[in-house]
Amino acid sequence: MTEIVETSAALLPGPPAFELDIVDDTPEVVIDLQRVRRNIDRAAATAAEHGVALRPHVKTHKLPPVAALQIEAGAAGIQVAKLGEAEVFAAAGFTDIFVGYPIVGSRKIGRLLELLGTTSSRISVAADAVDVAVPLAEAAARAGVIVPVVIEVDTGLHRLGAQPGRATVELASRLSDLEGIEVTGVFTHEGHVYTQAHSMDEKRAMTHAACAALVETADLVRASGVPLTTVSVGSSGTFRFAVECANISEVRPGTYVFNDLSQLHQGAATPDDLAAFVVATVVGRPEATRAVIDAGSKVLTSDRLLIADPAPTYGAVAGFPGARVSRLSEEHGVLEFPVAADLRIGDRVAIVPNHICPVVNLADSVSVIAEGMLAERWAVAARGRVK
Amino acid sequence: MTEIVETSAALLPGPPAFELDIVDDTPEVVIDLQRVRRNIDRAAATAAEHGVALRPHVKTHKLPPVAALQIEAGAAGIQVAKLGEAEVFAAAGFTDIFVGYPIVGSRKIGRLLELLGTTSSRISVAADAVDVAVPLAEAAARAGVIVPVVIEVDTGLHRLGAQPGRATVELASRLSDLEGIEVTGVFTHEGHVYTQAHSMDEKRAMTHAACAALVETADLVRASGVPLTTVSVGSSGTFRFAVECANISEVRPGTYVFNDLSQLHQGAATPDDLAAFVVATVVGRPEATRAVIDAGSKVLTSDRLLIADPAPTYGAVAGFPGARVSRLSEEHGVLEFPVAADLRIGDRVAIVPNHICPVVNLADSVSVIAEGMLAERWAVAARGRVK
Repeated sequence: MTEIVETSAALLPGPPAFELDIVDDTPEVVIDLQRVRRNIDRAAATAAEHGVALRPHVKTHKLPPVAALQIEAGAAGIQVAKLGEAEVFAAAGFTDIFVGYPIVGSRKIGRLLELLGTTSSRISVAADAVDVAVPLAEAAARAGVIVPVVIEVDTGLHRLGAQPGRATVELASRLSDLEGIEVTGVFTHEGHVYTQAHSMDEKRAMTHAACAALVETADLVRASGVPLTTVSVGSSGTFRFAVECANISEVRPGTYVFNDLSQLHQGAATPDDLAAFVVATVVGRPEATRAVIDAGSKVLTSDRLLIADPAPTYGAVAGFPGARVSRLSEEHGVLEFPVAADLRIGDRVAIVPNHICPVVNLADSVSVIAEGMLAERWAVAARGRVK
Repeated sequence: MTEIVETSAALLPGPPAFELDIVDDTPEVVIDLQRVRRNIDRAAATAAEHGVALRPHVKTHKLPPVAALQIEAGAAGIQVAKLGEAEVFAAAGFTDIFVGYPIVGSRKIGRLLELLGTTSSRISVAADAVDVAVPLAEAAARAGVIVPVVIEVDTGLHRLGAQPGRATVELASRLSDLEGIEVTGVFTHEGHVYTQAHSMDEKRAMTHAACAALVETADLVRASGVPLTTVSVGSSGTFRFAVECANISEVRPGTYVFNDLSQLHQGAATPDDLAAFVVATVVGRPEATRAVIDAGSKVLTSDRLLIADPAPTYGAVAGFPGARVSRLSEEHGVLEFPVAADLRIGDRVAIVPNHICPVVNLADSVSVIAEGMLAERWAVAARGRVK
């Protein structure tokens, strides 16, 4: 087991496998389709090898063509972040969609029922509290439908989720008595492993502990008389450990399709697995070791790395070892280089963002590179679907 | 002079002046039009009183109807962040647009010339280096047009900008020799005052120093034989000090139209001046002092406060003194309350973001409240125009 890498300087993302002038204008999110396919195929093979279903979280890409590649490679279905994303992916023909979010409020419940009435897709949703489930169940019962519900269990992230063990058993029992919904499983997002585990051994152990808490809880729920089929864990950073867990039915990584600086720091990807970049133009060269690019927080987001990060890093500069995006304004990114950089105003650079998911969410479309050529531009169909 | 406030708990944004169920679904950006008008009128009166032109930076709102109110109140023109925003506002009929950004790359220069060929609006652009100006000037000369250029001067932010004094004089001299462009002024963005000054006295002194550096530089440029009309400073946080500066022709605040938690912390606005909120729904109540809402970083952004902020704050909860958004995932906001909060799953809250400009940039449209009623929804016409 290696220790996780603590500085971006050591990760050295090399130059991307395409020419930067291939895109018409900047800042532009560029997808390397060959690497995307490789990432998809590798994760599919890993899941298959371990006998668990793979349900990719498509919030990373928000692109139906990428989800299609994931399904083609054997994914059992997809997860989306919000109901608005489900609407987009159902309209695009995806037949098994899990909304990993509680459907709260009459407007959202109405939209879910409307979606169920107009699609043949199976749409399941999350719930972690009676106050979430009851209004949904009542409305579904009135509409004469049964909504599949997966109970979220909090295995350590302390965001949403019922507590493992007795609390979840009681909740499952209450929910299974309601008309209009059917409890079909339990799920967790073990995102706490990103920040709380500091070595690969700790990451593995903490992921396995999250799996164990979920599996034990599922067993208790079943023993109480509520049958469950889905026992699902998920995050890209823990994917390689989660597949090792016994009695898990499903894993739900998302970022693995593109990867980013955070996944490199998690040890979950190598520089060769980076499949999405932001191509930007140098607009200022105030010093030999400093450059300003036309991509700021409105392109790269202000997301920080989820590791100890004494000097702020908002991205790496592909092909410039040790360089980092040190400061962001809305429209300006300041690059710091360890040595004088051979870059002039008008030159382009490829930035590896800290966190690719919200970066894609800021783009109306992305450029797709296949075999070194600009193949297509894809509209980010589910961009901004936060409702 | 008061010291600047260091904790969000002390700022106490009160409840917004509208009912939260006025919006159809959440998360939703809501604009209080009455407060917007008041903010616009007050800034316009302050600028007029001091005899300086007001050129609002419309990147804050990206909404032609709000820019129209600013022009109606006497604004001399508008500033935009990028060429893409200029295209939107020129199409919307605004006649004097300053793109406060260098136009770099043949594609962007081509777009600028195309815009100049199809609009009667006056479009001026920034430049701070020969390498920025020469390709622009050559292309403009070939097209037979003259592009007004305002030289950016770095008065302390150390982002873009020529250095004050001799460096700017030499640059202005070089640029004034080029066909295709006309140097019409100098400008600065004194954004360093936000982070480097720690009291109102320091903020005033640092703003006045930035003005003085710019005015001295303008005088030197004029003395060298290059006539200048525009001497422009700008930021919302320093607006009230910048108008006091002698021999400044123009101020360019942006955020004053809506305000946000950062402006409160800068002492540049009071809670009554807050004119934009994010209405969100409570989707989880894990503890009496903790709630989870359906607005995460994809709505509120990960922008931190630009002050010493030992406990992360991503927003305040209007009407809940001392409450803060303590943690964000992409779709979840975690609220921490100093005492048990009377909030149930399904209830709504109004969040005051740290930084409103990128929040608006994430919304396709905003709800507009007038006299306590939902008046309209406005499309965020210049959303995502980062090119």
